Amino acid sequence: MFIAMNRFQIVKGSEDAFVEVWRSRDSLLKDVEGFVEFHLLRGPEADDHTLFASHTIWRDRDAFEAWTKSDHFRRAHANAGNNGALYLGHPKFEGFEAVLEE
Amino acid sequence: MFIAMNRFQIVKGSEDAFVEVWRSRDSLLKDVEGFVEFHLLRGPEADDHTLFASHTIWRDRDAFEAWTKSDHFRRAHANAGNNGALYLGHPKFEGFEAVLEE
Repeated sequence: MFIAMNRFQIVKGSEDAFVEVWRSRDSLLKDVEGFVEFHLLRGPEADDHTLFASHTIWRDRDAFEAWTKSDHFRRAHANAGNNGALYLGHPKFEGFEAVLEE
Repeated sequence: MFIAMNRFQIVKGSEDAFVEVWRSRDSLLKDVEGFVEFHLLRGPEADDHTLFASHTIWRDRDAFEAWTKSDHFRRAHANAGNNGALYLGHPKFEGFEAVLEE
């Protein structure tokens, strides 16, 4: 199991607008080989932002990396530069491999 | 769905020892009301550490918070101060609420 997370620092007061951007997008992830599950997560609040994370479970790292090289990925991120006013800084990507399970 | 993550910065070369600490612990999570799933995750490497995260899925935040106030939690963390040489700094907790799902 591989978990791909992108961390977003969202300007206070823009949380609902950020969720709406995700809610209204056309996601075709369900059709992608190796995709398991997606969640948008709302995390802790700091003084100047609220942390959100996209949280996508993949069968394995290979499936995730194949997707990042696909046309599907390119289309899904074509508008990623919009809505910049919602963010403090750039999203930060972190990929995780499961090493133990219970 | 609520995800409880603790982020650990592990000294380079101590990764296997850290995983062994988790592998060999007595976990009773499966018996806890509202517990769904646990994974230990290995994340990206930085110059001076490798990021790991414990990643526990709970039915909801209330189930997680009830566990943190239980005897079970206290026993599970009784030895948390050991193995300090594996870490750079303290673990950092982040709790996440799922706001969208696919």
